[in-house]
Amino acid sequence: MEQSSLGLIGLAVMGENLALNIERHGFSVSVYNRTAERTRQLVEGRARGKRIRPTYDIREFVESLERPRRIFLMVQAGRPVDEVLAQLRPHLAAGDIVMDGGNSFFKDTDRRSAELAEAGIQYFGVGVSGGEAGALNGPCIMPGGPREAYPLIEPILTSIAAQTPDGPCCAYIGPRSAGHYVKMVHNGCEYAIMQLIAEAYDLLRSACRLSVPQLAELFAEWNRGELNSYLIEITAKVLERVDEETGQPLVDLILDQAGQKGTGKWTSQDALDLGVVIPNIDAALWGRNISALKGERVAAAKLLTGPDLPAEALDSGFVATMREALYAGMVISYAQAMALLRTASREYAYDLDLAEIARIWKGGCIIRARLLDLIQAAFRRDPSLANLLVAPECAAILARTQASLRRAVQAAVGLGIPVPGLGAALAYFDSYRRERLPVNLIQAQRDFFGAHTYQRIDRPGTFHTEWE
Amino acid sequence: MEQSSLGLIGLAVMGENLALNIERHGFSVSVYNRTAERTRQLVEGRARGKRIRPTYDIREFVESLERPRRIFLMVQAGRPVDEVLAQLRPHLAAGDIVMDGGNSFFKDTDRRSAELAEAGIQYFGVGVSGGEAGALNGPCIMPGGPREAYPLIEPILTSIAAQTPDGPCCAYIGPRSAGHYVKMVHNGCEYAIMQLIAEAYDLLRSACRLSVPQLAELFAEWNRGELNSYLIEITAKVLERVDEETGQPLVDLILDQAGQKGTGKWTSQDALDLGVVIPNIDAALWGRNISALKGERVAAAKLLTGPDLPAEALDSGFVATMREALYAGMVISYAQAMALLRTASREYAYDLDLAEIARIWKGGCIIRARLLDLIQAAFRRDPSLANLLVAPECAAILARTQASLRRAVQAAVGLGIPVPGLGAALAYFDSYRRERLPVNLIQAQRDFFGAHTYQRIDRPGTFHTEWE
Repeated sequence: MEQSSLGLIGLAVMGENLALNIERHGFSVSVYNRTAERTRQLVEGRARGKRIRPTYDIREFVESLERPRRIFLMVQAGRPVDEVLAQLRPHLAAGDIVMDGGNSFFKDTDRRSAELAEAGIQYFGVGVSGGEAGALNGPCIMPGGPREAYPLIEPILTSIAAQTPDGPCCAYIGPRSAGHYVKMVHNGCEYAIMQLIAEAYDLLRSACRLSVPQLAELFAEWNRGELNSYLIEITAKVLERVDEETGQPLVDLILDQAGQKGTGKWTSQDALDLGVVIPNIDAALWGRNISALKGERVAAAKLLTGPDLPAEALDSGFVATMREALYAGMVISYAQAMALLRTASREYAYDLDLAEIARIWKGGCIIRARLLDLIQAAFRRDPSLANLLVAPECAAILARTQASLRRAVQAAVGLGIPVPGLGAALAYFDSYRRERLPVNLIQAQRDFFGAHTYQRIDRPGTFHTEWE
Repeated sequence: MEQSSLGLIGLAVMGENLALNIERHGFSVSVYNRTAERTRQLVEGRARGKRIRPTYDIREFVESLERPRRIFLMVQAGRPVDEVLAQLRPHLAAGDIVMDGGNSFFKDTDRRSAELAEAGIQYFGVGVSGGEAGALNGPCIMPGGPREAYPLIEPILTSIAAQTPDGPCCAYIGPRSAGHYVKMVHNGCEYAIMQLIAEAYDLLRSACRLSVPQLAELFAEWNRGELNSYLIEITAKVLERVDEETGQPLVDLILDQAGQKGTGKWTSQDALDLGVVIPNIDAALWGRNISALKGERVAAAKLLTGPDLPAEALDSGFVATMREALYAGMVISYAQAMALLRTASREYAYDLDLAEIARIWKGGCIIRARLLDLIQAAFRRDPSLANLLVAPECAAILARTQASLRRAVQAAVGLGIPVPGLGAALAYFDSYRRERLPVNLIQAQRDFFGAHTYQRIDRPGTFHTEWE
């Protein structure tokens, strides 16, 4: 029997779709899953007649592959990855390539890379974004690992990735965990933008009294302009959806309790370790976490009153204000994500190409957006750009839109509608552009009670004052 | 030679002051320091004529102590603690007690507790707050460790702690790392309140055009009312201070770049692990971290313009608004800290007594404040209180002050002055009291692209929609 070009382990929906995508692009695929049943379902169902070869034991799986073997893991992040690697390892030879396509924690990827490198195995942490549909039709792929081995996987990865006029949405990201790190930050940015969209929806619904069908139309219209992006597009589609049984907008029937998986949380935690400021990702995380306290919120709503919502809807000009506020918030969120990548690139020696990352994010992934053209251009022109906000394109957007961002936040604050994301975006913008922050007072306090010392603006050195 | 009641290792300023405090309360103390020079300086200087016995090697140190030995470590958190423990261990016997009085990461304390327990050594993680002055004159002490051993250290700890009409500022906190955890959250709360004070100072200075002497007077006045607290008190003293050389207010000459040590960061990182929402601590951390980008800020200030500050100062009524806004922000910050302790108590099986923690925080520590009387009363009455915000005392304060908090945030937003702390407080308050958050939209989006499923408000179960 002919050997397969590639092997794939883990046939949950992402893995199955990825296998079908790979096969469609002319590569034969051996598949293996922990439970044989799932493998059988695939080959007797969606994979019937395709060059997808079922295997039912790890050894058979590995031996069915061309050498050097190329193996894609699509198993749950965490312990399952280590378990599969432990099973695989005795059957692998030096030069074989293993790609982890899950959302593994980047420090796990560093550890696994180092462990497998001892046996000469080339390990890649591969960020894959695009959800189920992306996996099948073309995801954004962020591979990180040994550069010298990349040519062995590049033809497959670039052919299965989303394609844009600006090339395939796949590029070599950097060594070790670079690919998983960039995917993690992508997900953090996704959280931030979803939070901003939710706040815009809330304000337009609560304060402007737009109906769900009106909102659906509005988001669809916004998607034709500078806000054009996958998340705005699906927001319109979500809002359009009517529940068949009740005839009500489906969104109105969905419980307001969101979960959060590892990547968003890890982004905030690692940013804290690096001292990088990403308040929009932080806000998105806490927006989800506080939503989980549904019972407490229902009880608190009776005890803690706030301003009444106005009897009249806000004037219709507020809709345009909201559009600009959302755009400003999105630009500021991307600025934070790119600033985190910039510092991580230095701290972890990833040597990231931020323009190239913006380019591959333009297709396939969840945060694809027209705005990424500007971001790509800004980092292409100046790879050492300190912060996206000071790129001329973005500075101009913020000069134009910041008044709307301020008005939106002021309105929400007055109405008692929480806007942690919009508020964080504005606080970040106003902090970043402030030559002098009131942190001199904090330094004085710290020196007062803890002798932490301080610096002065009028001369070099380190100073301590006996304040009492 | 008579054996000492207690031994203390580590004679930096906190350790030295603590040794003097202990001796002053009638206990003899053996001291040891890595460098002998420091020990000599102490016994020939501040400890002259006192029952403080210098020792110059670990064995001599341990043998100079009554059994079971009671040993206080006042060394830098991290590796130094492990190094000292490794040196001590061969000389210790079962039943001896070791107390780590530094700001150790709580998971390190758990690990050390377990390791030392194997040798029968009773390990305590002891939070000590109050800075240098507190260590000497009476700190707040938060000891966590094996309850059965606590009576052996209680008389010393309670006598050296700050004393209030409501008892000494020391109480058994809980097992293992409970003491260090509570100290960590104390420090996070300290960060949050310092950030709020800095924002109030900034707004009053930038928008109300108050001079530094006027601000000093104002904070001193505020300290006589409901804002009464150590941090407000020292803010007044900081603002009073005039630089001798230039004749200018010293605060104006201090560089606006703040550092942050481990405890604040760990608080936010652990809250993320626990899914607890503490946006005021998060905001304080990023407020400090963004201050560190001084060079970038100076450059950005020229490129990113915002609203002009008004030619006229805000009307004088804004001063009272600011006072109420700050009070509201403080209440909300404590609510977040207590909510984190509540969840940590459950997750880590600390069995914390939140009323007792509020009681001991009333003296000695950096976040001591009149407000803690209310917090103590609220948790005394209802130990299972879900959130401080819904306690009648606090709900009443927020009913009265929230309009000022809204006005302060709106003013800052309009003026382009960043208020991440005040904004976070309001967003938290408005989120917590909101029966329905717009997170239903986020759930729909997640189900759209990732098949994450959702729940409905009108029936039980887990649902997935084919959205396309």
